[in-house]
Amino acid sequence: MEHTVKAYHNELSELGADVQRLGQLAADQLRAALDLVVDHSAAKATPVIAADAELDALALEIERKAIRLIALRQPMADDLRRAVAALKSSVDLERCGDLAKSIAKRAAPLEEDIPEPALHLIKELGELVLSRLKEVVQAYADGDVERARAVWSNDVAVDELHERLVDTLLARMGGEPRFATAGVQLLFVGKNLERIGDHATNIAELVCYEATGTSLGESRPKL
Amino acid sequence: MEHTVKAYHNELSELGADVQRLGQLAADQLRAALDLVVDHSAAKATPVIAADAELDALALEIERKAIRLIALRQPMADDLRRAVAALKSSVDLERCGDLAKSIAKRAAPLEEDIPEPALHLIKELGELVLSRLKEVVQAYADGDVERARAVWSNDVAVDELHERLVDTLLARMGGEPRFATAGVQLLFVGKNLERIGDHATNIAELVCYEATGTSLGESRPKL
Repeated sequence: MEHTVKAYHNELSELGADVQRLGQLAADQLRAALDLVVDHSAAKATPVIAADAELDALALEIERKAIRLIALRQPMADDLRRAVAALKSSVDLERCGDLAKSIAKRAAPLEEDIPEPALHLIKELGELVLSRLKEVVQAYADGDVERARAVWSNDVAVDELHERLVDTLLARMGGEPRFATAGVQLLFVGKNLERIGDHATNIAELVCYEATGTSLGESRPKL
Repeated sequence: MEHTVKAYHNELSELGADVQRLGQLAADQLRAALDLVVDHSAAKATPVIAADAELDALALEIERKAIRLIALRQPMADDLRRAVAALKSSVDLERCGDLAKSIAKRAAPLEEDIPEPALHLIKELGELVLSRLKEVVQAYADGDVERARAVWSNDVAVDELHERLVDTLLARMGGEPRFATAGVQLLFVGKNLERIGDHATNIAELVCYEATGTSLGESRPKL
């Protein structure tokens, strides 16, 4: 019995460590994708795109471990929430990886440098979203509800920056038709960044759910 | 014991019926959103946008039931796969509902009629994606692997239509700057339709996994 309990707690800890590793991989992929937005090069994009397979494999492994643990160990209360939070966080993090890959694919073939002030806004949005992702992965690792709540609350800053980026790109596309193709790619890059921000918010809610069994509620500031 | 086994099978059946209902709701939402692309009206969009809350609530209920069933009933083999497939399908269907809501939000405020041939392509893509979604929900209901495989195989048709739509919209946006804003909205509508198609493909894979324990493999035709 002693042995079984220990194995079970090891499995739970391992699951948490796997999610942290997945979070680190997702943040690394986003960092690499953001660098490609500035310094676009098809050659540099190839390894970023290829590395997404590692995230997919790890997310699948987390899912299998979590389901197996829930089915075989019948965790109750706190422990069940830990397993469910790991399962759901891994879905969000795997999607962040997909979105980073999509940014790399869109940014790499851009032929011209991105004009200011659009480039400035994309960089600002990218760095903000990356810092939110890193923060929430740390909050998950530490089970730190206050840190998660801070990520959750400042989602509105992402939405504001994203709206400014869309307006800036549209104005440029309207005035300069030859910018249309690049402009569209950058609109999708912006949308992907906004969606990574949403996944960070989801994970912040899971950190709170795991620790307290309640959600952060409906009161999140929205544009 | 007899009683427990019966309750357990009732729970599994109920879970399957919930997923079918969620699939029907998602298809209804996509139908309504597609109608808004043709006949844009803010008044008609309001109930479509509001109805998404029903999908979210049902998806959350399915998740709770599936986790509870896995934790308390310890299903093995086939039954565990049924519960996992329900859990994962509900995530895909809930996302389809979100994407349909986003289409409704983007289509409703369009001020002008959409020019041909873009309108024709959007309608064609929309109907194709809707038929795939309905097919895969039926395949799930019947546990019909062959029907699921057919949905899975023709994902390439969605990708082809989507690429033609993007090219058509970009050409128009390049030649007619005042079309830029509407063009961007329609690009996102197209992207959302493509993503609903991807979720249909995911569900097709889950139908196969549920029935056989294996995935449909890596050989899916891709553009």
